[in-house]
Amino acid sequence: MDFTFPQKILFKHCDPAGIVFYPRYFEIINDCIEAFFDRLGFPFEHLHPQAAVPTAQIETRFTAPSRHGDQLNLALGVTQVGRTSLGLECIAHCGDQQRFVSRSTLVLTNSQGRPQNWPDDMRAAFTPYLRSTP
Amino acid sequence: MDFTFPQKILFKHCDPAGIVFYPRYFEIINDCIEAFFDRLGFPFEHLHPQAAVPTAQIETRFTAPSRHGDQLNLALGVTQVGRTSLGLECIAHCGDQQRFVSRSTLVLTNSQGRPQNWPDDMRAAFTPYLRSTP
Amino acid sequence: MDFTFPQKILFKHCDPAGIVFYPRYFEIINDCIEAFFDRLGFPFEHLHPQAAVPTAQIETRFTAPSRHGDQLNLALGVTQVGRTSLGLECIAHCGDQQRFVSRSTLVLTNSQGRPQNWPDDMRAAFTPYLRSTP
Amino acid sequence: MDFTFPQKILFKHCDPAGIVFYPRYFEIINDCIEAFFDRLGFPFEHLHPQAAVPTAQIETRFTAPSRHGDQLNLALGVTQVGRTSLGLECIAHCGDQQRFVSRSTLVLTNSQGRPQNWPDDMRAAFTPYLRSTP
Repeated sequence: MDFTFPQKILFKHCDPAGIVFYPRYFEIINDCIEAFFDRLGFPFEHLHPQAAVPTAQIETRFTAPSRHGDQLNLALGVTQVGRTSLGLECIAHCGDQQRFVSRSTLVLTNSQGRPQNWPDDMRAAFTPYLRSTP
Repeated sequence: MDFTFPQKILFKHCDPAGIVFYPRYFEIINDCIEAFFDRLGFPFEHLHPQAAVPTAQIETRFTAPSRHGDQLNLALGVTQVGRTSLGLECIAHCGDQQRFVSRSTLVLTNSQGRPQNWPDDMRAAFTPYLRSTP
Repeated sequence: MDFTFPQKILFKHCDPAGIVFYPRYFEIINDCIEAFFDRLGFPFEHLHPQAAVPTAQIETRFTAPSRHGDQLNLALGVTQVGRTSLGLECIAHCGDQQRFVSRSTLVLTNSQGRPQNWPDDMRAAFTPYLRSTP
Repeated sequence: MDFTFPQKILFKHCDPAGIVFYPRYFEIINDCIEAFFDRLGFPFEHLHPQAAVPTAQIETRFTAPSRHGDQLNLALGVTQVGRTSLGLECIAHCGDQQRFVSRSTLVLTNSQGRPQNWPDDMRAAFTPYLRSTP
């Protein structure tokens, strides 16, 4: 199962070339992940400040540019649930054209910023979103 | 030879956990690359709108968090000069602690957004910054 | 009549003090105005690049801080329709607590950035949102 | 005496119309004020988290658009030192063309977000920057 997140490309996302300035994509990806945790019942604003889920690594291919007014659809899935980490894959389309593929690793940290194990309820909540594809 | 770019971590970069919100790092990396092209004599504001250098792919590991007030130093080098593409590696330290390593591929595009060959003078300007290391 | 725009305060909006970093409020206000023009049938992505609606002046009082997770509601109304300008007032609440009041003036410009008169259909579209209050 | 802060307009500041997206100006103004406190010997990163200086009110006129590559110069002065508040005026020029004028009021708050009196050393540090002009 995917978590889907619609995002219209707004004026604020675009650069002088009229396409999305790529750091804005990472704000969109972060919004998507924040909405995902919200959906799972673990909103970021409740996790903090006892815990946090910083991004340890992220790699993204921008396969086609997005323009102001484009209606993007992000599909987020879980690629791996580690002891303290979470692998995510986020694929964005506009209609049937892919715009980007992003893979990232989050880590659950405690209030001192040290990795901590996922509680059982969070681990269970991720399971339905696990992608079997490589 | 590296292109070096100092950046103090400012209030605007930081999140409620007091560390850099990672999409802000990509703004910093973009500023670093813009300053690099400036140094080479090809400022972005002169390239545009006849040409642009969108980022096609970027992968980043955040190896330690950065806090408000930290003095970062970014070292940018060229990993590959393709026909229309440019591979870059950007490594940030605060003192001798590494904060992130980012590798990206830019593409030179024309006013229609299609890849075009690097002109000889730009290609020559990149050469001193080529990293021999893998 | 007001145009209403809900906005949850997200992680990306907040600073190390855990409250909204005020430049992010201006992105939210801009999103609200963009959604307003969308609702009126004049989406920014259709106006551009033949026309634009830059902000000429804006004044804002932040009457109480907003925190991560707060559900804000923005109420946007028109205070004045000039020959080439538009006066707007945007008031944000969380529940019944006011968070900010912002008043701004937009100007309709042509592709050369010069002020131009509002077309009759746009002028008519603003009318229902005119606030009679001072 | 003014505090001066140079800022080149970068790619990230600009919108599809090729001019500065105005919320980015507020990030620039914030950077200027952060640099001002730094110069005075009270860097934000030392003030926090025992104190903070949130913006209570800001009004800005954008008198001419700024484009990518423009070299802006911000001149910051103090208009008023209240018991717990600070009035600032920030005027930006590119060459001799004015780009914006911004007036804001900051408030010194404690760790609970309540206003507190300026310590004598901070009050003294502001004095040389007081503008006599209305």
